[in-house]
Amino acid sequence: MRVELMTDILGDNDAAARENKQLFDAHGVLAVDFMGSPGSGKTSLLEQVVRSLDDVTVKVIEGDVATANDARRIEEAGAEAFQINTGGMCHLNAPMIARAAGKIDLAATDLLLIENVGNLVCPAAFKLGAHFRLVVSSIPEGDDKPEKYPAAFRGCDGVILNKLDLVPHSPFDVKKFWDLCRQLQPQAVQFATSCVAGEGIGQLSEWLRRQHSQLTGG
Amino acid sequence: MRVELMTDILGDNDAAARENKQLFDAHGVLAVDFMGSPGSGKTSLLEQVVRSLDDVTVKVIEGDVATANDARRIEEAGAEAFQINTGGMCHLNAPMIARAAGKIDLAATDLLLIENVGNLVCPAAFKLGAHFRLVVSSIPEGDDKPEKYPAAFRGCDGVILNKLDLVPHSPFDVKKFWDLCRQLQPQAVQFATSCVAGEGIGQLSEWLRRQHSQLTGG
Repeated sequence: MRVELMTDILGDNDAAARENKQLFDAHGVLAVDFMGSPGSGKTSLLEQVVRSLDDVTVKVIEGDVATANDARRIEEAGAEAFQINTGGMCHLNAPMIARAAGKIDLAATDLLLIENVGNLVCPAAFKLGAHFRLVVSSIPEGDDKPEKYPAAFRGCDGVILNKLDLVPHSPFDVKKFWDLCRQLQPQAVQFATSCVAGEGIGQLSEWLRRQHSQLTGG
Repeated sequence: MRVELMTDILGDNDAAARENKQLFDAHGVLAVDFMGSPGSGKTSLLEQVVRSLDDVTVKVIEGDVATANDARRIEEAGAEAFQINTGGMCHLNAPMIARAAGKIDLAATDLLLIENVGNLVCPAAFKLGAHFRLVVSSIPEGDDKPEKYPAAFRGCDGVILNKLDLVPHSPFDVKKFWDLCRQLQPQAVQFATSCVAGEGIGQLSEWLRRQHSQLTGG
């Protein structure tokens, strides 16, 4: 009984996600879902991407259990931000994205970056209709996260290893981390970043710009 | 309809949690639930507490989405460990704890430490029957976590601010963090720890020992 209910919820969500993707495609909007633990640095990464991509129009949907702090940070970085407060819910879902998308001028948008709720478990089960999902994992979280939270790493299109600046201060085996990632998802694109040092932001931004060009046939 | 279902699930869980607590009380077992983000350092803290408490019998329940890595680490630290793999579920619940407790010799247990699934959202809604819930939050996660994940910090009995050794390398306002904690839960006991430096472990262990003494009238 409970399994059927969950299947229904996921089925309804997937249908809404497909509609979201059609909407984004129709407007030439590349949508990317960023998922990761609380404090993995998702907002800081988005701030830096917004600052570095000054020739494409970036908009951001911020998903949080509470507060609009992250949306304020994104606006200060220079992009229009739309806050979703889930009111306690542990993940974004496709209907929430559909409602937010209804408030966004998609014709005037190139990249729509979506920051999911800080959670390495639940968001994995809920597609949003984004073209790509990137998992953000940070050095101080430890090199074992892929095997401990396999659904997130198996279901993603790319992994961003963030807070590289903390490698000298943390027991973290970078090779082990990437090996675990590859075992779960061999095709995932890999990024290594530090928002403190500005490292790797250029590669991530360029990748996003390229994906948008390919989507729009540019 | 969905709200009622959720109320039922939580009601059933709370009933099971009350039974767990009665069982623990009957055996003079102090049960403590450790909740926090992936990579906040819960397992490392438990390893150090196990090593420092050599005059009371500590047992550990390890909750994980996947792997038995953490149980192995706890056994190496010298305590019997019982692994619960939730198979994708994002939190422990009281029936899982009841099943694990059935395999533990409670008459030969003083402290039962429970490491919840790494998740700062979902475990907050599910009581386990522990006497105390401690939230582990670490420096690199950022000083804004209490206001962004209020249910965890409002519903806890104590907060452990971990990875103090990373203060020099992270933009973290310790005063702001504790102010936010106090606003949400003025009674929460506060610990500040570093597993690298061994800092604060003695205070945490002593507090656990004292709570056990009070429970058993010692």
